[in-house]
Amino acid sequence: MRTFVPYSPVDPKSRLTRLLSREERHAFARAMLEDVVETVTGAGYSPTILAAAAVNDPPCDVLIDDRPLSAAVNATLEPPMAVVMSDMPLVTSNVLGDALERSSDVVIGPGRGGGTNLLVIRDERFAVDYHGTSLSDHRRIAADAGLSVDELDSFRIAIDIDEPEDLVEVLLHSEGDAARWLEQAGFDIVATDGRVSVQRS
Amino acid sequence: MRTFVPYSPVDPKSRLTRLLSREERHAFARAMLEDVVETVTGAGYSPTILAAAAVNDPPCDVLIDDRPLSAAVNATLEPPMAVVMSDMPLVTSNVLGDALERSSDVVIGPGRGGGTNLLVIRDERFAVDYHGTSLSDHRRIAADAGLSVDELDSFRIAIDIDEPEDLVEVLLHSEGDAARWLEQAGFDIVATDGRVSVQRS
Repeated sequence: MRTFVPYSPVDPKSRLTRLLSREERHAFARAMLEDVVETVTGAGYSPTILAAAAVNDPPCDVLIDDRPLSAAVNATLEPPMAVVMSDMPLVTSNVLGDALERSSDVVIGPGRGGGTNLLVIRDERFAVDYHGTSLSDHRRIAADAGLSVDELDSFRIAIDIDEPEDLVEVLLHSEGDAARWLEQAGFDIVATDGRVSVQRS
Repeated sequence: MRTFVPYSPVDPKSRLTRLLSREERHAFARAMLEDVVETVTGAGYSPTILAAAAVNDPPCDVLIDDRPLSAAVNATLEPPMAVVMSDMPLVTSNVLGDALERSSDVVIGPGRGGGTNLLVIRDERFAVDYHGTSLSDHRRIAADAGLSVDELDSFRIAIDIDEPEDLVEVLLHSEGDAARWLEQAGFDIVATDGRVSVQRS
């Protein structure tokens, strides 16, 4: 099954600007990409990076399409296919493999805040819409087409890494490239005032 | 299996103060408690609310213990037992039932940010420590005692409702009392600027 991994090589992870320089955000996003590519490969699938611009020294095939993500995915949509976000370093090959093997017309891996972090599309009547509350949109598109839907219940798939508070999840739940990158950059877990966050040494 | 549901009837959900009055926070916390009690019951277990003070018109048995949560749980710790947080309205009876049936010495349901939203304890050598990064502490306590650990990968268990941004998860993923309470209080999902949040009419 074709498995696309959308990746933004241009100014990635801008919401981490408070903690990481532009160069560091590039390196961290790249480390997460390497984790996801390894996870997809480990689950027995061949990933293709879907990027709006060229990717330096890519770890696998790259399809370049500079349109917005939804247009780029729909342009290459041919079931069966999967779309796996590149900022999910918590996902393991076991978790991903279980998701990609499910047989519903559409398999949705919800992300926090109404996002869609993983899609498996087995029917050509489906189309993606990543803008806004994509989870609601994908539920509606599938229902309107009369398609069967399987929604995953996975913490590891739901947690994409966008905000400073997300970094603690990488340190707590992953041992991949992204976690090692954070550790080498001096990040550590601190518990203060009942809240858990990261600090940089 | 004895299943405890810790619940704070005193000034609950203080991080929601920006959105909800004190009375509303009480009502919303209570709606979440009702959801969790129903989920536990639906999974085939008998819940006992563990509270620091009396609970008005409780939906099930209540054990009152005014010590900090860790001390209160450890005082009643007798395997097998489960501890299920009361602010997880996304959890379904199927998800909970699967968790409570696992056979490891300790079953941990991680919460976001290093929390522990669910515990199943099947060995008396375990003790709880909910202070700080409880996930790391519970991993360590189990490892030090040579106990087998099963860590759940569940979005529905990981998402406890503490912050304003969490309310959108209730509206997107639940149809229980807490979701109905939010809807009746005028909350709705809005997508602005690529972020999804709630607004109140």
